[in-house]
Amino acid sequence: QDDPLTGLDAMLDEAAPEEPLRVGVGVKITQITGVDQRAENYGVVARVRMKWKDEALAFDAEEVGRSIKTLSAKNFAEKARELGVNIPAATIENQQSRSFVKSATVSWFPDGTALYNVEVILTLQAPDFDFRRFPFDHQNFYFRIIGNAPTDFIQFEPLAEASGLGDTLGEEEWVITNYWTEVDEAEGISGFTSSRFSLGFSAHRHLFYYWARIFVPVILIIIIGWANLFLEEYRRRIDIASGNLLAFIAYNFTISGELPRLGYVTFIDSLMMAVFVISVASVVYNVALRRLSMAGMEERARAIDWHTTHWGYPVLFIGTILVLRQIFFVESTLIAVL
Amino acid sequence: QDDPLTGLDAMLDEAAPEEPLRVGVGVKITQITGVDQRAENYGVVARVRMKWKDEALAFDAEEVGRSIKTLSAKNFAEKARELGVNIPAATIENQQSRSFVKSATVSWFPDGTALYNVEVILTLQAPDFDFRRFPFDHQNFYFRIIGNAPTDFIQFEPLAEASGLGDTLGEEEWVITNYWTEVDEAEGISGFTSSRFSLGFSAHRHLFYYWARIFVPVILIIIIGWANLFLEEYRRRIDIASGNLLAFIAYNFTISGELPRLGYVTFIDSLMMAVFVISVASVVYNVALRRLSMAGMEERARAIDWHTTHWGYPVLFIGTILVLRQIFFVESTLIAVL
Amino acid sequence: QDDPLTGLDAMLDEAAPEEPLRVGVGVKITQITGVDQRAENYGVVARVRMKWKDEALAFDAEEVGRSIKTLSAKNFAEKARELGVNIPAATIENQQSRSFVKSATVSWFPDGTALYNVEVILTLQAPDFDFRRFPFDHQNFYFRIIGNAPTDFIQFEPLAEASGLGDTLGEEEWVITNYWTEVDEAEGISGFTSSRFSLGFSAHRHLFYYWARIFVPVILIIIIGWANLFLEEYRRRIDIASGNLLAFIAYNFTISGELPRLGYVTFIDSLMMAVFVISVASVVYNVALRRLSMAGMEERARAIDWHTTHWGYPVLFIGTILVLRQIFFVESTLIAVL
Amino acid sequence: QDDPLTGLDAMLDEAAPEEPLRVGVGVKITQITGVDQRAENYGVVARVRMKWKDEALAFDAEEVGRSIKTLSAKNFAEKARELGVNIPAATIENQQSRSFVKSATVSWFPDGTALYNVEVILTLQAPDFDFRRFPFDHQNFYFRIIGNAPTDFIQFEPLAEASGLGDTLGEEEWVITNYWTEVDEAEGISGFTSSRFSLGFSAHRHLFYYWARIFVPVILIIIIGWANLFLEEYRRRIDIASGNLLAFIAYNFTISGELPRLGYVTFIDSLMMAVFVISVASVVYNVALRRLSMAGMEERARAIDWHTTHWGYPVLFIGTILVLRQIFFVESTLIAVL
Amino acid sequence: QDDPLTGLDAMLDEAAPEEPLRVGVGVKITQITGVDQRAENYGVVARVRMKWKDEALAFDAEEVGRSIKTLSAKNFAEKARELGVNIPAATIENQQSRSFVKSATVSWFPDGTALYNVEVILTLQAPDFDFRRFPFDHQNFYFRIIGNAPTDFIQFEPLAEASGLGDTLGEEEWVITNYWTEVDEAEGISGFTSSRFSLGFSAHRHLFYYWARIFVPVILIIIIGWANLFLEEYRRRIDIASGNLLAFIAYNFTISGELPRLGYVTFIDSLMMAVFVISVASVVYNVALRRLSMAGMEERARAIDWHTTHWGYPVLFIGTILVLRQIFFVESTLIAVL
Repeated sequence: QDDPLTGLDAMLDEAAPEEPLRVGVGVKITQITGVDQRAENYGVVARVRMKWKDEALAFDAEEVGRSIKTLSAKNFAEKARELGVNIPAATIENQQSRSFVKSATVSWFPDGTALYNVEVILTLQAPDFDFRRFPFDHQNFYFRIIGNAPTDFIQFEPLAEASGLGDTLGEEEWVITNYWTEVDEAEGISGFTSSRFSLGFSAHRHLFYYWARIFVPVILIIIIGWANLFLEEYRRRIDIASGNLLAFIAYNFTISGELPRLGYVTFIDSLMMAVFVISVASVVYNVALRRLSMAGMEERARAIDWHTTHWGYPVLFIGTILVLRQIFFVESTLIAVL
Repeated sequence: QDDPLTGLDAMLDEAAPEEPLRVGVGVKITQITGVDQRAENYGVVARVRMKWKDEALAFDAEEVGRSIKTLSAKNFAEKARELGVNIPAATIENQQSRSFVKSATVSWFPDGTALYNVEVILTLQAPDFDFRRFPFDHQNFYFRIIGNAPTDFIQFEPLAEASGLGDTLGEEEWVITNYWTEVDEAEGISGFTSSRFSLGFSAHRHLFYYWARIFVPVILIIIIGWANLFLEEYRRRIDIASGNLLAFIAYNFTISGELPRLGYVTFIDSLMMAVFVISVASVVYNVALRRLSMAGMEERARAIDWHTTHWGYPVLFIGTILVLRQIFFVESTLIAVL
Repeated sequence: QDDPLTGLDAMLDEAAPEEPLRVGVGVKITQITGVDQRAENYGVVARVRMKWKDEALAFDAEEVGRSIKTLSAKNFAEKARELGVNIPAATIENQQSRSFVKSATVSWFPDGTALYNVEVILTLQAPDFDFRRFPFDHQNFYFRIIGNAPTDFIQFEPLAEASGLGDTLGEEEWVITNYWTEVDEAEGISGFTSSRFSLGFSAHRHLFYYWARIFVPVILIIIIGWANLFLEEYRRRIDIASGNLLAFIAYNFTISGELPRLGYVTFIDSLMMAVFVISVASVVYNVALRRLSMAGMEERARAIDWHTTHWGYPVLFIGTILVLRQIFFVESTLIAVL
Repeated sequence: QDDPLTGLDAMLDEAAPEEPLRVGVGVKITQITGVDQRAENYGVVARVRMKWKDEALAFDAEEVGRSIKTLSAKNFAEKARELGVNIPAATIENQQSRSFVKSATVSWFPDGTALYNVEVILTLQAPDFDFRRFPFDHQNFYFRIIGNAPTDFIQFEPLAEASGLGDTLGEEEWVITNYWTEVDEAEGISGFTSSRFSLGFSAHRHLFYYWARIFVPVILIIIIGWANLFLEEYRRRIDIASGNLLAFIAYNFTISGELPRLGYVTFIDSLMMAVFVISVASVVYNVALRRLSMAGMEERARAIDWHTTHWGYPVLFIGTILVLRQIFFVESTLIAVL
Repeated sequence: QDDPLTGLDAMLDEAAPEEPLRVGVGVKITQITGVDQRAENYGVVARVRMKWKDEALAFDAEEVGRSIKTLSAKNFAEKARELGVNIPAATIENQQSRSFVKSATVSWFPDGTALYNVEVILTLQAPDFDFRRFPFDHQNFYFRIIGNAPTDFIQFEPLAEASGLGDTLGEEEWVITNYWTEVDEAEGISGFTSSRFSLGFSAHRHLFYYWARIFVPVILIIIIGWANLFLEEYRRRIDIASGNLLAFIAYNFTISGELPRLGYVTFIDSLMMAVFVISVASVVYNVALRRLSMAGMEERARAIDWHTTHWGYPVLFIGTILVLRQIFFVESTLIAVL
């Protein structure tokens, strides 16, 4: 067994420059091509800017005849290698797919200020999804850039003005509420601590889709179930409750197609489970009533049933929703326990 | 906190040429490979032409022995870098996917006129979808090219004759009504204002698909519901209304599969919601009638029902459609409020 | 507004050689990887051959020590650029996807005859689909190659022997009946008229799939509907006709999944619409009969029904099919009107 | 019309070497990434080895200081071009997708023996599927390599030890029974006959999936149909037979999703068709019985029905299966006729 | 027939260095992009590190002016070729898709220690799935790196500290319990035995998904079936049992969509089969009871049924589950037999 860090540690310390290169980093997301919450990732088109100063890049504008030089990033890298100039090599930490570079150039000015501008299409991991309150959830998304070299070599600083989100993201479901930039440190590709820049943004969902496709239909099915109670035919009610269970099971599959296979209970799961249990209880209840009435206790059965029909059924559903609301949205300590 | 623009601003101003390079731009879309309205993008094969004049490219036809020079775009870029010639570098602003270049060449003439011809396959963002009137909606699509350098360096002019849409686009659903070119300014990859060329086109849908798959079947289901009213059996009607609700819920899912998850109500959504509510109301109405008739008020129930059966049911549907039509297609101020 | 062609026209005329380069072109499709009729494209693996003669490529076999030279296409292009030799640059006009080159070489002989052989995997647009007679339709497919330079520079000639379709295309649904080559002219990437080579082929469908999955089940459902007429129970018939309508609506979705969203009526669409209408008419008819019989005119209802049951129902379906057949397959002028 | 082969034929003959280069070829498939029988292709990861001897590659081990030289395939190709050494260029004939090369190197030894080792991920056409006996079918798969140059230039020989299939293919459905190597000739990319190496393997299916998902459920549905016959209620039977027909139609779609759209009848298709017809016949039979019994011939109807219930129904199904088995699996001449 | 190994064996032996190059290898998986158990593969983003020492890379830090050198992997390969330095070329053995390299660099130190750091996105084969106990299964996953050259040339050693799994894998379904590194030998691309490094990890599933979507609904359907027994109506029971069979068949398809097409029986398959058989038996049982009661033995039928209703039905299901549990989870010898 060999410790790759022991020897390297000392060697890297020795190799580090007196002061790390300070690199300003900005990320502007111009398009969100899609959010795939089952795979926990999202696609973006983003403009990344890096800005640093290197004396070795300085030139005499008079002599050269112009006061800006521009090369494609690839050609700049070649030139930098020839000149022995440092490039602030970095990786998009949470990149999850092949990326496509729309444009990548480096421009630099007589005083040695260099600007690396790249526009890139890629998919980013979004592992921070917490679906407990789905679809009433708030989620955070990040675009993270980490230096390849350890913090002794390169340190990032946020370029606030070059960061943010564009106006025509093309994302319909999510409402982005705010964004921010962060710089922290994390283990880099070298195995040592590297400087890390993050553009974060927070979003919640437009709820119209969930009301129109899930909640309203389920509520209407429940109302129809209630209406049928007034017919006072036990067998018919059993058929309707059984049919509703099948409809709710179908909804359950629709919902499960929305989410990854989680290891915890979400609000909507517990709602569906409650509706399942009520349906089955409804069948059992009506079988019991029918046996009661066939056993000659018709009057008794009707008396019990009057209460169920006139207030029991709706109260049961509303109560369930209120309890679940309390658990999932009010007492957050309870959620932590679950 | 560091303002990347402050210092750069001055530096760029200094670096700008006396007059920006004027570049004619034309885009001809030869194929539309698909419109994905859920992802709000569309795929095209397009021919982009750029035309500009640079004295540094001029040559003596006699001496060279021919009066046109042609290189692949890649080789031209290399040559331009060697000669220090400017290239009007630009990016397809709303490109959303990896692109594939079928052909890209630069030709230039003795007087220094250069022509960049590229044919490219790619997917473009179409974030301007407004589905409120779906499927009776009109939509605008754009192909946008933005200069990499700020407007002080490069300015676009439209090449009207080299712009437009081909004859065999291979798109069946959309009817393209007209197209136009625009030049405006937008924030470029440099963070400064760049010149932007847009080819826009406007389209609406062939409606046959929506009539054949959605409207006609829904209307037929409603007619069957009406026909059954004439049988005057309340329980049967309840079953039919419940069954129809399930059918409409299934249609609702079909429609939701067509659209992204919007944050606003569309015409077709409100139509489906109205049909849902009518179905549920129909169940409640028939339960009420049945209780009435079981309570010995058979005559009364029949009297009420005569009106529903003979004109109430169809009038309700037609009225709903007229109201929704008024809201979504006539009083556009109302839509703005929604 | 600037006309890009005016100036270019003259410049190009001047630059054109005395005689255009004549290039023989052949395309052999060895595999059809798939036909996607909804997207109106198809995938192929194809071998493209181009043959031309250029004195500048001639060499002395004795001196060189061999009588054939071969280079990869990429290396040949480099060499050609160095030697100033012309390459008959062309584009696959209806290419719709990223392509993958399996092999691309240029071989040339002492007399300057050059052979460019490339095997390529790609997806081609097939915008000529006409689904009016689907699934009894005949369709044409093309593989089109267009010169990059105008006709003054390059002209194509078909290489008939190097064109055609292979023996193991791996396509099960389509029966290819014949193929042909064409050379015509079309607007090229330069904006001017270019020479265009096309390999076309014509195909129709194996119909077993459509009989087994669509026609036979629909016919069997209709036969069951007929059989039930003999039971003379009006309510039962209404349920069966309603259930059949739902089954036909499901079929309608299956069919719509096969086709793009067309702007015109196909044979199968009108067939389904007819079946829809017959189902609804059947419900209305039986409601009317039932009301008649409940109004004491049982005898009358039965008399009417005898005819429907014994010959009306099948005659209605057979008549519908014959009329549609006449419209879609016999009187082609009628189709043109639709 | 121009014959590309006439002139080329003579030129190629002249250019051919005295003796073709003999190249040993071996293919070892290490992973099967998937079999897509609808598209008739399959994905593999394979190691291809080519071995040949070229005096021009020989070197003096003493002088060089080592007795093996290795280059990446790309670098070797460059070097070979510089040295004028021949490379046995070949194409994977039935490749159907973009390929990804995991590793490709050429090693050569002092005596001029060269070894080209490449590991490649790709999709291969499998056009030889015959689904007549599906899912009891046996299929052949091939990995075919064809020389780019005609047989006068290159000839392949199988390297048996370097060919075969790995131990962890990762394919669950198919059982590979044996494999073999072949060398034959086919039309190459040059248009002339080239040498072709094939690794073939034969496979049949694990049948558990088909029993558990298709056959057992269908048999159980049929048994339930039989059980209901004993209730002697004609109307109920009609409903069950109609319901079963719908269930079988759904199965029919499931099966059709498994297969490409074939132009011939498979065993499972004819089985489903038989089950369809029996279901419809069952409806007609019960309608007839009911009319008989309503016409006062109750006794007669019951007598007929006794036989159907007690032995007719099961014998009909078993007989159908036996006949189809005879047609599809025993008398292969019959299949040939179909 | 030619044995490629015979001659090569001797040649390779001669070419091998006195001692193989010892290369430390570490793999850290930072993201799991997805587990596709039907295709038996999984996607990762991983950081691979290789560490070795080569005197030929040593340099004088004083002279060079710095004590670390870094190049992109591509540039290092070029440089190594020029210097004749060895690179420990290796392949990711179970790679199954095109990979994307996020970053790949080589750094080396004055003493000749070289570090190759690469971050790569790719899909890996996971052929070791055993679904017998699905969804209560434990599975092993591997990331395997194999040397291109035989063990005489290169030998791997694990870098334990550079190996493992990251904190934010983004995988919701699987719970990773532990990981380990291994070094063994396997047949390499050269056809000879190569050194192989493996990072393995073991995982089981979060079961909430399977309880919420499959087990709970099936149990509730069974409970409803039980409740209906208490109504003592045989025909109704037959309808419910038949309906349940259809629901279970639908579940069966859902489950089959989760798994590849296996050649063996899983726990969940045998559970579903048992439920199928019980449903059919239930139909047959009730048909028998009804015939009994219609044959005037109503009392007898009721007596038998009392036991079924009050304890037989639940005991049957619980007993089935216990037996299957015994077979699949306790007596593992039994599984081996199956």
